[in-house]
Amino acid sequence: MNGSQKNTGDGMDIADLRDRILNQERRALARAITLVESAREDHRAQAAELLDALRGAGKQALRIGLSGTPGVGKSTFIESFGMMLTAQGLRVAVLAVDPSSARSGGSILGDKTRMERLSRDKNAFIRPSPSQTHLGGVARRTREAVALCEAAGFDVVLIETVGVGQSETVVAEMSDLFLLLLAPAGGDELQGVKRGIMEMADIILVNKADGDLKSTAIRTCADYSGALRLLRKRPQDPEGFPKAMTVSALEENGLSQAWEEMVTLTDWRKDNGHWAGRRVQQAQYWFHEELRQALLARLETKDARDVVEALGADVAAGEIAPSAAAEKALMTLGIASTKA
Amino acid sequence: MNGSQKNTGDGMDIADLRDRILNQERRALARAITLVESAREDHRAQAAELLDALRGAGKQALRIGLSGTPGVGKSTFIESFGMMLTAQGLRVAVLAVDPSSARSGGSILGDKTRMERLSRDKNAFIRPSPSQTHLGGVARRTREAVALCEAAGFDVVLIETVGVGQSETVVAEMSDLFLLLLAPAGGDELQGVKRGIMEMADIILVNKADGDLKSTAIRTCADYSGALRLLRKRPQDPEGFPKAMTVSALEENGLSQAWEEMVTLTDWRKDNGHWAGRRVQQAQYWFHEELRQALLARLETKDARDVVEALGADVAAGEIAPSAAAEKALMTLGIASTKA
Repeated sequence: MNGSQKNTGDGMDIADLRDRILNQERRALARAITLVESAREDHRAQAAELLDALRGAGKQALRIGLSGTPGVGKSTFIESFGMMLTAQGLRVAVLAVDPSSARSGGSILGDKTRMERLSRDKNAFIRPSPSQTHLGGVARRTREAVALCEAAGFDVVLIETVGVGQSETVVAEMSDLFLLLLAPAGGDELQGVKRGIMEMADIILVNKADGDLKSTAIRTCADYSGALRLLRKRPQDPEGFPKAMTVSALEENGLSQAWEEMVTLTDWRKDNGHWAGRRVQQAQYWFHEELRQALLARLETKDARDVVEALGADVAAGEIAPSAAAEKALMTLGIASTKA
Repeated sequence: MNGSQKNTGDGMDIADLRDRILNQERRALARAITLVESAREDHRAQAAELLDALRGAGKQALRIGLSGTPGVGKSTFIESFGMMLTAQGLRVAVLAVDPSSARSGGSILGDKTRMERLSRDKNAFIRPSPSQTHLGGVARRTREAVALCEAAGFDVVLIETVGVGQSETVVAEMSDLFLLLLAPAGGDELQGVKRGIMEMADIILVNKADGDLKSTAIRTCADYSGALRLLRKRPQDPEGFPKAMTVSALEENGLSQAWEEMVTLTDWRKDNGHWAGRRVQQAQYWFHEELRQALLARLETKDARDVVEALGADVAAGEIAPSAAAEKALMTLGIASTKA
């Protein structure tokens, strides 16, 4: 099927790819995401060219971050929620940030079998997480994939994560809304959800409000509602937000109510300048993150590794102090040290 | 008293300072530490010169890291423990790593009134924490102060911390031995001591094993002994280590036993190459840390700030993507980006 196409390589026609993405061709989108995920230098250059050519094109999708640990029913939720949105005529893209995917040998979305219906939906696009261990790299590639989905005219971009390490922060910093999906908890403890994660959430969804777990889900939801009320009021929230709700992804209950709340919150934030403000803040955040990472990447080049290894041996032998060796390394690499 | 002396400044005679430190003059040591704590560029250069002139001089002290939260009796312990060591003819220096000292407006050691006896002891030297918010800066200055204390012939350098944030790691990475000082806990819970901290400890000391708290201290100690047995065996430990012991800093009980254990552990590690190996590892660790920090400090210069601010505005205006802006910033600053 790819016989007549060139792979992402030297001969790729970026202008053509751009047009096909703007024409909402899913295969072109998939190929473009493969391009931005590539670590090859020529691919990085082409990706930059493509992203630049697409700047300002397409639409600003609603970017929804979704975090939930394994077992809370994340895939089922995304499938049910996504199907409900596409049934309303909305186009939905699903991306994943999974820093552990390299370790576990596959993406959390696997081969899409866990979202069989949604993956067959013409108005949906599901992309597994790039297999990379480095969260910084995953973050940039995912942000670029989001930009591509927006260029391809998607209305909603769902960015999911299992919430390993810092991945919630990464996802929250690239989302307009951040959802926390939880399972009903026995007792009234708050499932060890870290305060920092709670504070990121715009809406907490207690899933599995069905069958035997329904009353537990309702009680859990009440617990979280109480906990959310104790948090400091954030300027970007209208009255009543952040809030906790019950849903049943399995029985498809509560999903449209959850969506209504998301729309209400989004509209309020747009009307009050918070929506645009958050995107500006996020762009600044990523600029500084990228800057730090690009700077530190300077130490990963061949010449830098050689210099660091040689000086490291001198340090180990006690011939030079660690700080002096650090300054010497940067001097040797032509990065004048400017330590105060 | 300082009238005939120049302050740390242009005219400082580094060779003279060096000689006086090697001559074990405490005032010279204090002055040298002030020099290494200074952020002024000329002071940094002089500090480097001094440290270089002192390299290999003096002796390798036993560096003991000590962590304990407020209320466990850290000052009392250091005073009693320090007095016991000086009574044996050992010279003891006490340094502090306290990242919060800038915030709280003073060092944890305050004006030494909390260790009145030890501070009057001719064989002891107590130095409050430099007031710096940046833990990286505190780390380097403390390591340099340790080197100065060793050059001044101290036998034991105690480096204490309250264990805020990463400060335990900082202290453990510059110590030959790491002690965790704890208070007796009601019940058999392990006081919420983080596993990572437990894994750093060579000896856990449960303080306040006196009066009403004695039996609780013994029980707490047994709990920790049990917990330590569950940890994975470390190659740098002989049989029976890490271990938990009770002490009473107030009644000066258990201190000499604790010291005996430290000597036993140190001797074993020296005999088995672990002591020197750990110092080499630590030097490498600090080399890499210094390298990262020196590199990131490149972003804190005036020219870098200007470039970053201007590009940040472009990012906020949506005129350039965060990653492209980051690459452009490094290019402008003459640090060729080499991102893969």
